[in-house]
Amino acid sequence: MAAESVPFDLGESGNPRVTTGPISGSRKVHVSTPSGLRVPQRRVTLTNGEHLDLYDTSGPYTDSEATVDVRRGLEPLRTTWITDREATGGGTQLSLARSGVVTPEMEFAAVREGVPPELVRDEVAAGRAVIPANRRHPESEPMVIGRRFLVKVNANIGNSAVTSSIEEEVEKMVWATRWGAHTIMDLSTGRRIHETREWILRNSPVPVGTVPIYQALEKVGGDPARLSWPVYRDTVLEQAEQGVDYMTVHAGVLLRYVPLAAHRVTGIVSRGGSIMAAWCLAHHEESFLYTHFEELCEIFREYDITFSLGDGLRPGSIADANDEAQFAELRTLGELTHVARRHDVQVMVEGPGHVPMHLIEENVRLEEELCGEAPFYTLGPLATDIAPAYDHITSAIGAAMIARAGTAMLCYVTPKEHLGLPDRDDVKTGVVAYRIAAHAADLAKGHPRARERDDALSRARFEFRWVDQFHLALDPDTARAFHDQTLPAEPAKTAHFCSMCGPKFCSMRISQDVRRFAEERGLTTERAVEEGMRAKAAEFTASGGSVYLPVVER
Amino acid sequence: MAAESVPFDLGESGNPRVTTGPISGSRKVHVSTPSGLRVPQRRVTLTNGEHLDLYDTSGPYTDSEATVDVRRGLEPLRTTWITDREATGGGTQLSLARSGVVTPEMEFAAVREGVPPELVRDEVAAGRAVIPANRRHPESEPMVIGRRFLVKVNANIGNSAVTSSIEEEVEKMVWATRWGAHTIMDLSTGRRIHETREWILRNSPVPVGTVPIYQALEKVGGDPARLSWPVYRDTVLEQAEQGVDYMTVHAGVLLRYVPLAAHRVTGIVSRGGSIMAAWCLAHHEESFLYTHFEELCEIFREYDITFSLGDGLRPGSIADANDEAQFAELRTLGELTHVARRHDVQVMVEGPGHVPMHLIEENVRLEEELCGEAPFYTLGPLATDIAPAYDHITSAIGAAMIARAGTAMLCYVTPKEHLGLPDRDDVKTGVVAYRIAAHAADLAKGHPRARERDDALSRARFEFRWVDQFHLALDPDTARAFHDQTLPAEPAKTAHFCSMCGPKFCSMRISQDVRRFAEERGLTTERAVEEGMRAKAAEFTASGGSVYLPVVER
Repeated sequence: MAAESVPFDLGESGNPRVTTGPISGSRKVHVSTPSGLRVPQRRVTLTNGEHLDLYDTSGPYTDSEATVDVRRGLEPLRTTWITDREATGGGTQLSLARSGVVTPEMEFAAVREGVPPELVRDEVAAGRAVIPANRRHPESEPMVIGRRFLVKVNANIGNSAVTSSIEEEVEKMVWATRWGAHTIMDLSTGRRIHETREWILRNSPVPVGTVPIYQALEKVGGDPARLSWPVYRDTVLEQAEQGVDYMTVHAGVLLRYVPLAAHRVTGIVSRGGSIMAAWCLAHHEESFLYTHFEELCEIFREYDITFSLGDGLRPGSIADANDEAQFAELRTLGELTHVARRHDVQVMVEGPGHVPMHLIEENVRLEEELCGEAPFYTLGPLATDIAPAYDHITSAIGAAMIARAGTAMLCYVTPKEHLGLPDRDDVKTGVVAYRIAAHAADLAKGHPRARERDDALSRARFEFRWVDQFHLALDPDTARAFHDQTLPAEPAKTAHFCSMCGPKFCSMRISQDVRRFAEERGLTTERAVEEGMRAKAAEFTASGGSVYLPVVER
Repeated sequence: MAAESVPFDLGESGNPRVTTGPISGSRKVHVSTPSGLRVPQRRVTLTNGEHLDLYDTSGPYTDSEATVDVRRGLEPLRTTWITDREATGGGTQLSLARSGVVTPEMEFAAVREGVPPELVRDEVAAGRAVIPANRRHPESEPMVIGRRFLVKVNANIGNSAVTSSIEEEVEKMVWATRWGAHTIMDLSTGRRIHETREWILRNSPVPVGTVPIYQALEKVGGDPARLSWPVYRDTVLEQAEQGVDYMTVHAGVLLRYVPLAAHRVTGIVSRGGSIMAAWCLAHHEESFLYTHFEELCEIFREYDITFSLGDGLRPGSIADANDEAQFAELRTLGELTHVARRHDVQVMVEGPGHVPMHLIEENVRLEEELCGEAPFYTLGPLATDIAPAYDHITSAIGAAMIARAGTAMLCYVTPKEHLGLPDRDDVKTGVVAYRIAAHAADLAKGHPRARERDDALSRARFEFRWVDQFHLALDPDTARAFHDQTLPAEPAKTAHFCSMCGPKFCSMRISQDVRRFAEERGLTTERAVEEGMRAKAAEFTASGGSVYLPVVER
């Protein structure tokens, strides 16, 4: 093993700074379950005395009661669950679900979703959902990924050889989960990969994923031809011991598929996929990830690591979408899904990439068919290639559509995609764009709790409760800042208009007057208007001091 | 008439400044047609000697050969077309199309689309497309809106009582069209509405739309009850004379529909809709826009103004989508569409608003059925309500989907929607987000020319032609700026890696090596690999100095 030698030394500054404190307008509450679990939620208290509890991904960092010490790491929430389980024979979430056991992880995840724990167990048992929870990552707050649950968002972080420090990466993790990332992936490729990951894991309240081939490649000096199964296996073991919850494995890039990508417009764009393709060509052998897949399953079962079967041949452009290279690999990922399940190992399957809208749904249908409905985990997809610097938007369009069709988790894309490494602001923008896509899909799929937040925000909007509108927003700070740009004074936060239309033109305001007028007179149907209103028109004119028009829209 | 008294006086600064000069990497070219038209295009010249010509909305402002003088206004491109036509009896684009005439406007628009002029004529004759071109706005470069053509984007500009100056609004028009807006709407409600509009019209290379009820309301001191048909008619005439190309008319808000909105979560959110609802209630009379609709048609025919039948009862929240109020009004808009067509007046129909993804398609199907396939012109729709400050994204998701289903023009939404008046940066962000949505739909609908730009950009990306990638992007400046943030040096613009993954990890680069290896050896099929590659594996390893990995993606 070539683990770095200076664990827990931040190097650059020595004094890690991360963002703490509640999100504006919210505070942390805990739901207690009969079995004694304490499940965190984010409570938004409204000015009308109501409140709304939201799914909370942000961990203790937003809890004003909690003490955060990045050097010590988070409190290990799951330690006793894990030791109790090991005392009675252990098992993975999948094997336990198959045996009919509802684990604390399942119960915890069910409370977050607002569903019965048995539903989580059933879906995990069927392989339609996963709970990524390495037994060596007891700090994480369990969550479930599957098409019957809320659509999840992953945020990629990680340094590269060119830029960024460990401290920046830990803060990116805290920052991404603050804004709603349900998992994070550490894709570091630069210096001190092991140490960066250790800091992230010990401080992460969400599952952490990695792509072990990146570190393996660093260990062999960056030459894919020098990779080997032993180097890879040792890297996986090293990361498993650290507590990585799910790992991307590009085991579907088979030797015979590589030429299928030769005539593509953008070839192979997956980093892991290109590494494995190069290895296969250099050795003219089948991928060691494929030939040693069952050994890998044994390691994954031991730690209860979840496979994220990587789509190394995913399309990197609209031109290459849904081609033979992509779908050939998908068939192999389906085969491997069933192998892993035989080993009681949980599986997600990764998906594209770059796909025009009319080809999106086929990806979901094929994945479900070929991979036994394993949770689909897609990168976007980008619905067009022509907007670098706005690929959080090109891909949020594809992401919303593919999530509606059944994708369980979306890997975010930031505005820097294709151009550079995302900074902290880019991470936030990417997470918020993807929370929008995920939530839009939850609404379209009819998730029972999804509408609550839209309706609460819409009511606040209609009643000119500006502060409530900010606090219910995915990003309260930016919403308020935008309002402040034109109407910064505090009275504007309760004013019955905004700067879009000014005080005389607000449709919301006149609409309220219309409603009051109609309701006071019982005129709430077409018929009632026809019959009863003629006589009362004068009243409205007389009472009409309030018929001012100040809008919110065209 | 209450037109303002000081035309052509900018007031605030006296010296109008607008943005001029070519878009980075582009220059203006003109396509000459056999009949003598000169149609502008934007030519992107690539570093590999190729070029790509793009639809150009930006007018003479991006032409380095043109002299721009905002005080004089643009050269009136269409003057002789209009006078020639009037000398032979006149007519609207619709009446002429029905007579089998291909007007210069149709030919001009066809060249921009890359389609036969007869297709434009046929679609206009059938009412499935419109060419908004008031004969008093000869400065505009004609364009066509319809489902068989490229999806168009409108940008709303306009001041309010609270903020902004005439100069800012003229610059917003120039700025919005620079980034790709196909039409603009001047929604001013504040001071000097007439004068602002005059400046915009005389300098606008794209069709200009308005909502005349806003100015009419200003004329009666802001009290909807004091509105009347004569005040409204005079306002329409005033704007018609100035050259407004299309006008939003909320003639479908009938008295009996108003109570249908009373129990909504967000009531009536359309400014025009709420004004007319208040008028109907105050007078207990049917809307004068409805009862005088045929007189309005006469005026519109005279100037060849296009109706944009406003959806005054569109939903303002997810909760209110596709409800009875909305669809009752849509039925009336269908009735009015057919009335207008009898008068040879072109018609678009406006659509929502706020609609969850699973209810989007029904809007298009109903509009087509009820409104004789008149071009649908939608505002977003927003696919969720929970992201104020990011509603350009929530709505780009809905916009891409509704455009794919058949919407012909999308009204943009900026990040400031629901929070304040957009500034210049917001206008650009909104336009780019909507060009993404429109283009994604063009791809999905299979528009023959849509793929060209994606493929050109993807090829540039794969070949590390960074500068070409920037220049082919919807926003070259931001793409380059993002790349500069981590790798500002000029050599990085030709480097075979970026800061996302650094020099050792680039999948694009290794993918090129793989391609070269496979092609040199004729190994471009699965079978060839099986048969021929075993013997050659050693070669690849030997030649492998270039197997470096530096990505662009995970």
